[in-house]
Amino acid sequence: MSVVLGANQYGKAEVRLVHVERTGDRHEITDLNVSSALSGELTETHLTGDNSAVLPTDTQKNTVFALARDGVGQIEGFALRLARHFVDSQPTIGLARVAITQAPWERIGPHSFASGGGGVRTTRVTYDGDQAWVLSGLTGLTLLNSTASEFWGYVKDRYTTLAETHDRILATAVDATWRHAAADHDEAYWSASYQAARSALIAAFADTHSLSLQQTLYAMGERVLAACPGVVEIRLSLPNKHHFLVDLAPFGIDNPGEVFYAADRPYGLIEGTVLRDDAPDAGPAW
Amino acid sequence: MSVVLGANQYGKAEVRLVHVERTGDRHEITDLNVSSALSGELTETHLTGDNSAVLPTDTQKNTVFALARDGVGQIEGFALRLARHFVDSQPTIGLARVAITQAPWERIGPHSFASGGGGVRTTRVTYDGDQAWVLSGLTGLTLLNSTASEFWGYVKDRYTTLAETHDRILATAVDATWRHAAADHDEAYWSASYQAARSALIAAFADTHSLSLQQTLYAMGERVLAACPGVVEIRLSLPNKHHFLVDLAPFGIDNPGEVFYAADRPYGLIEGTVLRDDAPDAGPAW
Amino acid sequence: MSVVLGANQYGKAEVRLVHVERTGDRHEITDLNVSSALSGELTETHLTGDNSAVLPTDTQKNTVFALARDGVGQIEGFALRLARHFVDSQPTIGLARVAITQAPWERIGPHSFASGGGGVRTTRVTYDGDQAWVLSGLTGLTLLNSTASEFWGYVKDRYTTLAETHDRILATAVDATWRHAAADHDEAYWSASYQAARSALIAAFADTHSLSLQQTLYAMGERVLAACPGVVEIRLSLPNKHHFLVDLAPFGIDNPGEVFYAADRPYGLIEGTVLRDDAPDAGPAW
Amino acid sequence: MSVVLGANQYGKAEVRLVHVERTGDRHEITDLNVSSALSGELTETHLTGDNSAVLPTDTQKNTVFALARDGVGQIEGFALRLARHFVDSQPTIGLARVAITQAPWERIGPHSFASGGGGVRTTRVTYDGDQAWVLSGLTGLTLLNSTASEFWGYVKDRYTTLAETHDRILATAVDATWRHAAADHDEAYWSASYQAARSALIAAFADTHSLSLQQTLYAMGERVLAACPGVVEIRLSLPNKHHFLVDLAPFGIDNPGEVFYAADRPYGLIEGTVLRDDAPDAGPAW
Repeated sequence: MSVVLGANQYGKAEVRLVHVERTGDRHEITDLNVSSALSGELTETHLTGDNSAVLPTDTQKNTVFALARDGVGQIEGFALRLARHFVDSQPTIGLARVAITQAPWERIGPHSFASGGGGVRTTRVTYDGDQAWVLSGLTGLTLLNSTASEFWGYVKDRYTTLAETHDRILATAVDATWRHAAADHDEAYWSASYQAARSALIAAFADTHSLSLQQTLYAMGERVLAACPGVVEIRLSLPNKHHFLVDLAPFGIDNPGEVFYAADRPYGLIEGTVLRDDAPDAGPAW
Repeated sequence: MSVVLGANQYGKAEVRLVHVERTGDRHEITDLNVSSALSGELTETHLTGDNSAVLPTDTQKNTVFALARDGVGQIEGFALRLARHFVDSQPTIGLARVAITQAPWERIGPHSFASGGGGVRTTRVTYDGDQAWVLSGLTGLTLLNSTASEFWGYVKDRYTTLAETHDRILATAVDATWRHAAADHDEAYWSASYQAARSALIAAFADTHSLSLQQTLYAMGERVLAACPGVVEIRLSLPNKHHFLVDLAPFGIDNPGEVFYAADRPYGLIEGTVLRDDAPDAGPAW
Repeated sequence: MSVVLGANQYGKAEVRLVHVERTGDRHEITDLNVSSALSGELTETHLTGDNSAVLPTDTQKNTVFALARDGVGQIEGFALRLARHFVDSQPTIGLARVAITQAPWERIGPHSFASGGGGVRTTRVTYDGDQAWVLSGLTGLTLLNSTASEFWGYVKDRYTTLAETHDRILATAVDATWRHAAADHDEAYWSASYQAARSALIAAFADTHSLSLQQTLYAMGERVLAACPGVVEIRLSLPNKHHFLVDLAPFGIDNPGEVFYAADRPYGLIEGTVLRDDAPDAGPAW
Repeated sequence: MSVVLGANQYGKAEVRLVHVERTGDRHEITDLNVSSALSGELTETHLTGDNSAVLPTDTQKNTVFALARDGVGQIEGFALRLARHFVDSQPTIGLARVAITQAPWERIGPHSFASGGGGVRTTRVTYDGDQAWVLSGLTGLTLLNSTASEFWGYVKDRYTTLAETHDRILATAVDATWRHAAADHDEAYWSASYQAARSALIAAFADTHSLSLQQTLYAMGERVLAACPGVVEIRLSLPNKHHFLVDLAPFGIDNPGEVFYAADRPYGLIEGTVLRDDAPDAGPAW
């Protein structure tokens, strides 16, 4: 028996980049959090501290800022440019992963903006020197249905106390990531497919009369695949943000679905994948 | 010399209440975080543990839920109802403070909602059995101007390294609280004055060509007082969320105000009060 | 009626300073978060953006680092040096407030350290060019008694559902700030009084058979004043971190004080002051 | 082409359990955060909302509390009991994952405790009805060396600005997870192996004269495998918490490794695996 180095990567996490596009008086801003991680011929730095194959994380950070000078555009495209730069320019680096989140801003003037709601847009790109894989997504989109949610007919055992219900609040904070069949898309595709997927998630959540959060999850995933021909797989992680009806009977008051207590912990967590049965292999995408 | 009990209060913090108003198929939701704090004849519980004057914090929580059954409405009105209930119903309680924050939701269907951006609405009400004081506000509203901000002409000393600038990003997360001259307003007033104050804050931030964040702060406060005749004082706490222009010269690239690094810490913090010179006494409002 | 500028201050918040003292092979580290806020002749920057009286917050940050070069020592002493520097060196600045928190580290080698628990040490110093006021404190010290806590004999009203108990868990996260009678102390005093106050808080919490968290709060404050002759006042903010006994009866199991659910929100919040009846005036200390 | 359901699981996250063991006057407390996730015959709930195969997450929560009534012991053992219970008692459930974190407490009295530092202990157990896999770990253990860290000899490219250094601060927050060869261990093994691994991580960090954080990572992993014969693989995620030497030269002051600025973001992130070359297959452990 001997001890060996296994899978490893290193990079710079959470480079906070804000890009301002100045076209006359009207500005556009792009607010990103960029993380890169590189793999390659890194055994020596682990075993002896010989860094001759290491592109420092500080340089990765500088590269994010330098490449942004040419404009950022859609985050999938920017992540692809970064990932390709690292692998193609560094003989010792065989694989790059770039993850970006984009914060939403709303215009309040020609050069003025207010931070928006509705979650943040995400991408994760992997490039191995030959092929690239692109994931898009969003996280932190909180949705709530104040009715049209039921939960009953489940397994009962010794430890069951939950009462069945035919009307409850259903709330979640959507964390969704979807995989594109290909990486060679233009800016218009990345933008349009994101908007289509986001709209599909919201519409499916609102439209589905839900018998379980799993059912809602599947409906959301199915709707995204229907709306986005270039998307082959979607993974959803949906916390069940419990809202408990408060028992007002001790005070002689009824509570016909009006007064709820919003709990923090514990929470349900429903995770699932919806995909096309002919989806190409995901490779190292996830 | 002897040791004595000084100022004290106790209460229940962060009761998470969601109220659903069901008028036919179209629902309205109100999502609140309610905290109450009571003062009064509380010496004995501190000195001996005799709780005969103590209304438990658990009961305060129950009361929040029970009073919500009649509907919540504007948060200032709900806070007033709670504060008056505690003092008027409890002979041992002389002063109540109720603080509420309201999370923003946007409609996506008849009974479906998505969490919104732009910060949360706040109120803090104080009631002493006779008079009530009402503060309204908002917090977490992040605003950014990508130009029209300068900073120069300041004091230089031994420790100065900052370069003067005539064009920078100015960004802040607005935390504002304003005081109303009176507490006896109807629902329409609380709603309209909040909307007017919020709009004034945003417009003043966007419109002001800023030579200092202090100047922007004063302009924001002044604009709120101009827009809201019932408001007599406003306090603003504005972090200066620094965005530093990245030096790309080492890479042979210019950076004409396009690529910025958004820093976390440290940050500037500008705090100030703007008030009418005939503002009535604030009493225990703050 | 006209609109005027009221109370205001500005400064740099959260300068993250780590100082290494190198005495041979054995190092000492001091890990601080320093915030400064200045007041003075600042009307013009608010009204016109004329910054000729403004010492930039960037310079305040530089000053924190520069003054640390001579060593940091006890945080009260370092805060006093900073506050005096700002007011005494700047003719336009009449009042300085410096707040510092110190993170705990434990030694694991001559130059190696592990982050510690038990909360962080704090100070807040105010200096007006003539007099200085010093507050010391700690925050984030979580304490728990698994018994020796009761709560009964309280007011019952229409909204009471809480059952009386003669044995419960009592847990809190101590946030305590105490005021010294004088500011002209040496390093040994600041160190010793902090250690004495911290020990008194812990011992009083552990020793007190509690009938209410208010009683525990008072006992903790009284113990600090008894242990620290130079301290004249202490303010405590104690969340009641509820631990609810889980009802296992539906499963045919008893629960004699063994299995608890630790709740997040809401929580009780008990706040109180304990002081000497001959405490000097606090001035602008708080 | 058609759309299908892929990998999925559901469970209850973050059940906050505190267990008190009362042996006479001297109490022991165990403070846990327990999450469970189940997989099995769950297609119907996704496709039609038929929940007849679903053990509700509420019941999973109840089960955590009920099984704790018999005592908790080492978290690996408790997680195994829970995972086996879910799969063995539910015909529709084929795989259970249970993750537990344990908060550290230090004794300050017979029934009194203060929250400790040094990170939290973790476990993740997977059980498929036949075999079980056990991971142990810790997270949030922040370590700092004030010297004995160098970084030089790395790749330079167009975007390099970082200066080489032969003396820097090296700080990280250790997130480590290690895999045991077998699951059938007694309480003494889980306890002893955790203590041995934790000590090995700390000692290796403190002892290693580091030429790269990768080198330190490998040394830490190797030391754990050397100290723990039952452990076959360890994965480490080590943020490089940058401490930058402050340039005091503009103020005419030198800075021989004494005054540092602790940065928040971005940060380096070094991730790696160290394993025995004869490690058994990990199955679904990770």
